[in-house]
Amino acid sequence: MHLFQTGELKLLKEIRERFRLDPGEDGVIVGIGDDAAVIAPQKENIIVTTDMMNEGVHFDLDYTSPFHLGFKLVSVNVSDIMAMGGVARYIFLDLAFTRDADDIFFQKIYDGIDHALSYYGVRLLGGDLCSARSDTVLSATLIGVGGKIIKRAGASVGDKLYVTSTIGDSACGLEILKRLDERSREAIRDSAEAMLHLTGAEPGLGGHTPALPSELAMKKGDGIITIKMETAGPLLRRHLMPVARDSRGIAPYASAMLDVSDGLSLDLCRLCDESGTGAIVYRDKVPLSGDLVKAAELMGLDPFNCAVSGGEDYELLFTARDFPIDEYNALHNIKVSCIGEITDEIRNVIDKYGVATPLKSEGYQHFGPPG
Amino acid sequence: MHLFQTGELKLLKEIRERFRLDPGEDGVIVGIGDDAAVIAPQKENIIVTTDMMNEGVHFDLDYTSPFHLGFKLVSVNVSDIMAMGGVARYIFLDLAFTRDADDIFFQKIYDGIDHALSYYGVRLLGGDLCSARSDTVLSATLIGVGGKIIKRAGASVGDKLYVTSTIGDSACGLEILKRLDERSREAIRDSAEAMLHLTGAEPGLGGHTPALPSELAMKKGDGIITIKMETAGPLLRRHLMPVARDSRGIAPYASAMLDVSDGLSLDLCRLCDESGTGAIVYRDKVPLSGDLVKAAELMGLDPFNCAVSGGEDYELLFTARDFPIDEYNALHNIKVSCIGEITDEIRNVIDKYGVATPLKSEGYQHFGPPG
Repeated sequence: MHLFQTGELKLLKEIRERFRLDPGEDGVIVGIGDDAAVIAPQKENIIVTTDMMNEGVHFDLDYTSPFHLGFKLVSVNVSDIMAMGGVARYIFLDLAFTRDADDIFFQKIYDGIDHALSYYGVRLLGGDLCSARSDTVLSATLIGVGGKIIKRAGASVGDKLYVTSTIGDSACGLEILKRLDERSREAIRDSAEAMLHLTGAEPGLGGHTPALPSELAMKKGDGIITIKMETAGPLLRRHLMPVARDSRGIAPYASAMLDVSDGLSLDLCRLCDESGTGAIVYRDKVPLSGDLVKAAELMGLDPFNCAVSGGEDYELLFTARDFPIDEYNALHNIKVSCIGEITDEIRNVIDKYGVATPLKSEGYQHFGPPG
Repeated sequence: MHLFQTGELKLLKEIRERFRLDPGEDGVIVGIGDDAAVIAPQKENIIVTTDMMNEGVHFDLDYTSPFHLGFKLVSVNVSDIMAMGGVARYIFLDLAFTRDADDIFFQKIYDGIDHALSYYGVRLLGGDLCSARSDTVLSATLIGVGGKIIKRAGASVGDKLYVTSTIGDSACGLEILKRLDERSREAIRDSAEAMLHLTGAEPGLGGHTPALPSELAMKKGDGIITIKMETAGPLLRRHLMPVARDSRGIAPYASAMLDVSDGLSLDLCRLCDESGTGAIVYRDKVPLSGDLVKAAELMGLDPFNCAVSGGEDYELLFTARDFPIDEYNALHNIKVSCIGEITDEIRNVIDKYGVATPLKSEGYQHFGPPG
């Protein structure tokens, strides 16, 4: 059924029922359904972030399922709160659907949102639901709390530079999606929830399990090549439904931090700009996943380039003087790597032969000069 | 110059400079330019609202200037905070521009935003600036604070029903805009700041003053009729750049409150639904402006219909047992009218002959059935 047959009031009622809170639960005084939401006074600092995702710019519905979209919308915002050293608490959603969107699309977006909210322990407190003339638009504002705030500014010469997990996977995943033939795109889009069970999925994520295909077909020149799902799956998952990294074990040590959303190179330059420092990255230390290396070789890509110039990794990039990396890694599933150090002015990537190339402040730019 | 020639980084830098805060100013620990903003702990309740405005749905760039858009985006959100009995403090903006949008359009939106922020005493703390494939999209989240919270629920039988200022003006203003000939539309769009000086403008609003035309031409049937700017101007202004009503003199007395955004009839039904009551509205008591009555007659509209079924008034509708209306009106520019009372179940409009017609829960619905 199309949304315009259902009507706004009925849709709002459904959302309100689904995300209902008991009075006073989680510090919420007024939840969904009034002019505004009301939260009880806070003893900690209040951390606020907002992010927008637009059809045709941030996502392509040819290969993105509404479930993934909903999940990702929450994750990218949680990632920003984590990157400040905070804990995500309350979310507000402005969603615009085209008039021909159907009930299933609508419900699946909320399934993805709901799944992410449960995973992160975040409550939906309000928003705006409206129609859009041509493209789906999703905007979220997330409120968190935190004691010690970790800014981008704060790095100093001699600090080491760290990153969580592996980077470049998301950019490679996106490149795979773009090259998939139509049947494989549809298979990925229509078996969204199955990705929750891929190797590497964080504990706590569960869901339905329709089958994923065992391999995918990609266009290469005039021909077709195939890539195994065991290689492609984790990369696609990193792009389609990224999981924000928990910074609670990191924040006590970090001097500066941000999440890598526009590529390691550009985001590191931002950290340096704010801190008034330089940085050296050791090329060999940048953590690349085995799947990325394998897929990049198959596709003729430079995996290091995916890592430094790609985007949407949502890994934490941070600096610290005395981060106990071995103890941290022994305790956590998501490992941390030391990839370089903070310098006075110079900003270089240094390869294994000691050859230095300048760190470029490049990455995805909205309204950037054409490519 | 087109935005894609300017580039995202330069645009962000400009915004950051323009809305810069000193460290600690207004309780802000981290402002624009990090992963998230950080606000100091709050002793009062935290009130949060969000609203989205989409091109082709909420506004038409044929007659809406970017200055008005920016101003209205802030106002509609402030209105929601006021309607809870709060004071607006911090705003976050997600704005999406098409790639062919130019620097002037961009700057004028921020001029309107800036003007509204100064007027309401709200600080811009962050947001997301991105590109849109086809339509301009504006989304704002506003954080306020408040002690006594006024919900939609809370009215009880015997409470009187009140509304601020006059209603229906905005709906009539929109109808004028839709009927204007092309030249008049352009004149309205291009002399946006001049509206700040129209009769009825709230004190504190200032700005540049390009000339407004003294009359406007509207299509009527096959012909053209003209309407004087002194009549049309205030109505257009109510639609194009509404001013949120200050609830500080009202909140101490109010038992329930909301802002009239989707028409008196629908919004009153919402208040009744949440409070579990009915309501009677005395038709003759509903405050209509002289401009509305004059313009509606010229255009063949029922002014009362503009008031009950129109939208976007952003007046406060509230209930109270002992509201000191005479003292309030003696002290405030924006007057309050008593328009009815809260009943047990019955929901009627009663005319001067005592004839009752049911209050319909009608008004603008996104995804509503056509027509």
